Formats: sequence, structure tokens, C-alpha cells
Amino acid sequence: MSDALIEAAPGLANIVVADTAIGDVRGDEGFYHYGPYPAVELAMTRSFEDVWFLFLYGRLPSAGESADFAARTCTLCAIPSDVTAMLRMVALGGAEEHPLAGLRTVLSAVATAYDLPPIWDIDEDARRQHTVLLSAITPTVLAALHRIRQGWEPVDPDPTLPVAAHWLYLLTGRRPAPEHARAVERYLIATVDHGFNASTFTARVVASTGADVASALCAALGSFSGPLHGGAPDRALDALDAIGDPANAAAWTHAALDRGERIMGFGHAVYRTADPRAELLKSIALGLGGDLVERAVRVEDAVTSVLSQRRQGRPLRANVEFYAGVVMELCGIPRAMFTPTFAVSRVVGWSAHILEQAQSRKIIRPRARYIGPEPHSGLLQ
Amino acid sequence: MSDALIEAAPGLANIVVADTAIGDVRGDEGFYHYGPYPAVELAMTRSFEDVWFLFLYGRLPSAGESADFAARTCTLCAIPSDVTAMLRMVALGGAEEHPLAGLRTVLSAVATAYDLPPIWDIDEDARRQHTVLLSAITPTVLAALHRIRQGWEPVDPDPTLPVAAHWLYLLTGRRPAPEHARAVERYLIATVDHGFNASTFTARVVASTGADVASALCAALGSFSGPLHGGAPDRALDALDAIGDPANAAAWTHAALDRGERIMGFGHAVYRTADPRAELLKSIALGLGGDLVERAVRVEDAVTSVLSQRRQGRPLRANVEFYAGVVMELCGIPRAMFTPTFAVSRVVGWSAHILEQAQSRKIIRPRARYIGPEPHSGLLQ
Repeated sequence: MSDALIEAAPGLANIVVADTAIGDVRGDEGFYHYGPYPAVELAMTRSFEDVWFLFLYGRLPSAGESADFAARTCTLCAIPSDVTAMLRMVALGGAEEHPLAGLRTVLSAVATAYDLPPIWDIDEDARRQHTVLLSAITPTVLAALHRIRQGWEPVDPDPTLPVAAHWLYLLTGRRPAPEHARAVERYLIATVDHGFNASTFTARVVASTGADVASALCAALGSFSGPLHGGAPDRALDALDAIGDPANAAAWTHAALDRGERIMGFGHAVYRTADPRAELLKSIALGLGGDLVERAVRVEDAVTSVLSQRRQGRPLRANVEFYAGVVMELCGIPRAMFTPTFAVSRVVGWSAHILEQAQSRKIIRPRARYIGPEPHSGLLQ
Repeated sequence: MSDALIEAAPGLANIVVADTAIGDVRGDEGFYHYGPYPAVELAMTRSFEDVWFLFLYGRLPSAGESADFAARTCTLCAIPSDVTAMLRMVALGGAEEHPLAGLRTVLSAVATAYDLPPIWDIDEDARRQHTVLLSAITPTVLAALHRIRQGWEPVDPDPTLPVAAHWLYLLTGRRPAPEHARAVERYLIATVDHGFNASTFTARVVASTGADVASALCAALGSFSGPLHGGAPDRALDALDAIGDPANAAAWTHAALDRGERIMGFGHAVYRTADPRAELLKSIALGLGGDLVERAVRVEDAVTSVLSQRRQGRPLRANVEFYAGVVMELCGIPRAMFTPTFAVSRVVGWSAHILEQAQSRKIIRPRARYIGPEPHSGLLQ
């Protein structure tokens, strides 16, 4: 091509690819926000549906809008009947359980069932409606996949329950205790969005081609499943189990570091100070109380202490995964569904980024530099 | 975050995000190549399987390797039995035919059936093998989806046929004429890769998180379906039909330009000169001959003439879509399967980029700049 190539830092670190009004992370301040609102304050004071509305419309709903939106999303949580038959096959595929890949398969099929058009062929209201449809069925699909995999019947959706309580109900078949529903709701609100992470960027790349909403969400689910994406609260809880007695935590941490391993549940690429999500989830866990929480606090103290001894430059603190795992365990979420719970909220964040990206008509397409041998004719006989 | 943001051109145009030895496009020269080989020369002299090998191993196969690889890929084209049952549901979903979304649904399910692990948990041979599995079933899946949609039974794969002849066989149920098989083979070779297009970039973004091969391919299929990606030879042939008699071509083109429309099949973002793929496909079409080809040549001349009158700065020439549609029509490919034919070859290109990206452990994650209102506490009552 004729235009000069421009060098960038590996992985495009610090290169601005989009303007956003959705939110931001201030790593130095240990602070993140959704629009003008500190995310932690939203988690403490609002419903998940209100925050979902905020991501869709760029403002919080009035009381009337809040009730209408909650009622509307509740009725959209049922899986289309022509896709239901596929759920069983998707759930039972493979030797291992793959809830996120299963969700991708089903959302991809739903896009076909609904004949979703490219985002540029429809107006913003229609796009928004498509994101709501796909977000609303996400918990229903994930819970059904999990239950079928366990050999249980899926739970029929109950359109009277709000998202967080409904998620617990769909997983367990029991109406959750109010304090569990509220704890999960706060977790969901706190994880809708978090800066320009890899899955969010993926959703925007696909949206920038003008493809349909489901194409962008399916792509985001792919990045979300990558080991570098992070966000696997089950691994942090596995580590807590492996440590057992908190008195072992320091020795366990030293040994893991000696083997060159990362300590799951500690450290974050962006936060130089405490992860505000970890602080929120710790307070939620302490509110729920019990042996597991006490053990987690003692392990956190011991691990943090070892990490600060051994990593002088930049101490690592507990991240969102550490107490998220504790909270989900206390609320009765099966461990295989910890990361899928993250997807239940993040699909709303991806949707907002798709809607925002759709307002631009500029494709996101950087360049590669060819470094192979110089091509020339006549090499082929 | 503490690091300074760096402004970039919209859409990251000209920003280098990867080094590649896979190939490149020289828009000013009207030239593109796969490694050291001009792509058009490969199309004229090699089999699709040999070029597939080149993309996987970075070199052309020896005669023995060529036969082994062709034999091996032939045997991998059958759809896993636990996914076959799903095909019918996927094919029949929705009011319209969605072959690419259907392929994505099935590949996503195949990934689950095979328990594909993240690319960083396996070595390069295993990754390569996963790409071969998914690429090898792509034509089988696409053809089955199309035939079921038409109310026909899928054709049983014939592992004795090479990819191009097999594709025509799977679509039509008839062994193709050798000249048709060879014409399609040249088209497939010519479209395996073409610089850093949007779907290729998408595949690499997902691969950069360490996700599995299918996650990256499913994401690429999403970008591939976007209107900005291009690559819809059926639209160019639709235009040829709309024009009818070539004597109408000039008036038709003027009228379309007056309405502010793009002329499908003409113009390319990268080539400043003739599109070498269009020249290759034109020569293939001329070799096949017939009324449609004669009409296409006359329409091309008339449209090019009008475009050069009305766009002084940068005349638009026929692009890959224009003669690709003609060639596919002559070879008996149903129009709904023109773009899916493109996917049959491009999946091999995406695979090579996934394998190359997997050698880096650096996530691709640029930044967004927050432009919304300044956040502060106390906004929530």
C-alpha cells in the first residue's frame, strides 16, 4: 500500500481506537465509573436493570421507566422454541463442560432464528432491541446448559423475578434468599464493564464492519474465553481450597512463587492501588459472613504480605476474582458457573459498546508488516 | 491509567499491530503474494491443498508431502456425528438463509464436541491440527446447510475428491467437469488471504487472548459477514442481471451514481491499479466462455468508462467480486453460496494468522478515550 506504516507498541498498548462515553478505569486512583457514576455507588444503590438501562440509553431511568424496563426484560428471558431443541445437544457436546462456548453456539443460532440484520441496515432502536433480546436470554441459556449437563431438567423461567434473583433461581430451581440475590446483583452491576478489555475491543472490531449484534457478541465470547482475558473467579477459589488452613498460606504462596507461578486472585494489569471491585466484594462477603469468609480474609492478608515482601516494585493486591469466588460460593452458584456469571453481566457492557461503535462508520483495521522473504516470479516450476 | 494515550488515525489505519510472514498486498503495484510466491502464480500452477500446506507450514510441500496432505485432509471432511443432528435445526432457522451464521453455529458446536483447549495449552502441531479439522469440515457443513434449506438431502462426502471438486460435488451431488473444478480451485487459491483485512484482524485479536482456534474462527466469521468487509460476489452478479443488455450499462451506471450508490464489483480500498484477482478471474471466465462472459466483458468496459469519466481522481476498476460471480455462476454454484465459497478458502488464511499470532503472547488491546461527563460521587440519591 502507498501509505506509510506507523509503528506502535506491541499489542497496540496505549493507542486510542475509540472515543467512549460508556465509562473508564482510573488505575492510579483505584476507581472506575459508568458514565458519570462511580460503579461501586451504582452497585450499592441501584438494581441491575437500572444499570442495564443506563448502558443502553446513557442515563438512569425514571421510576416509571425503571419498572417498565424491568417488566419488559423479564418477559424476554425465554429461549425461542426453535432453539430449545438444540440446547440439549449443545449442553452434552464434549467430554468437558463448556458453558461459554455453548452460549456462543446458542446465541449464534438465535441470531439466525431471528434473522438479525447487519447493524447498519437498522436504526438504533432496533439494534438496542436486539442486544436486549440476546442479553435477556443469556442467563436462561447458561443455566439450562448447566442443568442439562448435570442430568437435571432446565428450570422454567419465572418472568416475575429480576435478573440477579432469576439467575440463582434458574441455576438452583429454588427462590434465593434476598441477601444472596442482592449480593449477586451487586456483583453483576460491578462487572458490566471495565474499560477497554479484550472482549470489549473484539465486540467493537466486529461491530465496526457493520455485522449484526450477535456476530459481535459471539466474537466477544471468544476473547472472553482466552486465558489472557482473566476473569475466572473459580481459579481463585480453587487456590483458596488448595491452601486449606490459612496458617499454610504464606508457605503455599512462597512455594508457588518459587515455581514461577502466578497467584490466582491477586494482581491486576490496570490497578496500581486496591481493585475497587475487590473491596466491594470483600464488604459483601463480610456482610454474608461465615467460615469461608474468615478464611479468605486471613489468606488474603498472608498472601498480600508475602507478595509485598517478594515483589518490592509493585505489590499485588486481591483482585476482583478473589472475593467474587467467595461471594458466588456463599450464594450457592456452582463453581463451573462462576465465569458464566461474569458473562451474564458483561454481555450488557459488550452490547453498549456495540451500540456506540455502530454510530461510527469507520472500520477498525490496523496493518501488518510483512517480514518474510521478498516475493518474486519464477519460483514455481 | 497512568500511561499516556497515543492518538491514532481513525480505525487504526496504517498502525502496525503484527509482523507477518504469511503474505502481503502491494496496492500500488496491483500485486499480492503468499510468502515468497505471487498468489496468481500459485493459482495457475498449484493445487488448493498445496497452497493450504504452504499456509500451515510456511513452505510448499514435496511431492510426497503433497499426496499425504491431500489424502489426510480428504478424510477429515466428515462432520462429527454428534453435530450432524444439529445441522438440520441450524439450516432451517429463520425466514432467510444464513449460511455463514450457520457455519459459525456448527463450528462453535464442533469446538465443544472436540473439547478444543486454549491455544496456549497445546503445542503448534496440535493447534495446526485443530485448524485443519475445522477448515476441512467447512465445505461439508456449508453445503449440507444449503441443501437442507432447499429441502434436499446432504450429499455424503467423497474422500477421494480434492477440495475444489469436492465443494462442487457437495453442493450439486454431481461430479463436476474438470474445467469447472479447476476454475473454482483457482478462485479458492486466489482468495485464501489478502493482507490484513477485517476478518483476519479479528481472528488475530481473539487468538491474542490465548482462546481456542474455533473461538478465533467464529469471531472472524462475524467480521466476514459485515457489509464493510466486502467480498459478496453475488451482489456483483445481481448488478449484472439488473443491467441486462450491455447497451444499458452506461445509462444504468450513470443513474446509480446519480442516486449516490456504489457500483458493486468495482473499486477496491487497496488497489490503485487493476485488482490482480479480477484479472485472474477474468482470464478464467474467458477460458470457460459463453454468453454470460461476453456480456460481463462488455458491461465491465462500459462501467469502467463511465467511472473514469465521473471519478477523475481515482478511476475504479473491476474488483475480485465482479468476475468471481461470473466464474461461480458458470461452474454451477448457487448464488446464495457465492460468499460461502469465499469462506471455504479464507478459513485457511484465518487459520494461518491464528497460528502465527499464537507464537506471540502479547494480547492485542488498544485503548479508548473517555469523553463523557466527569464522574463524581453523590449523584445517586
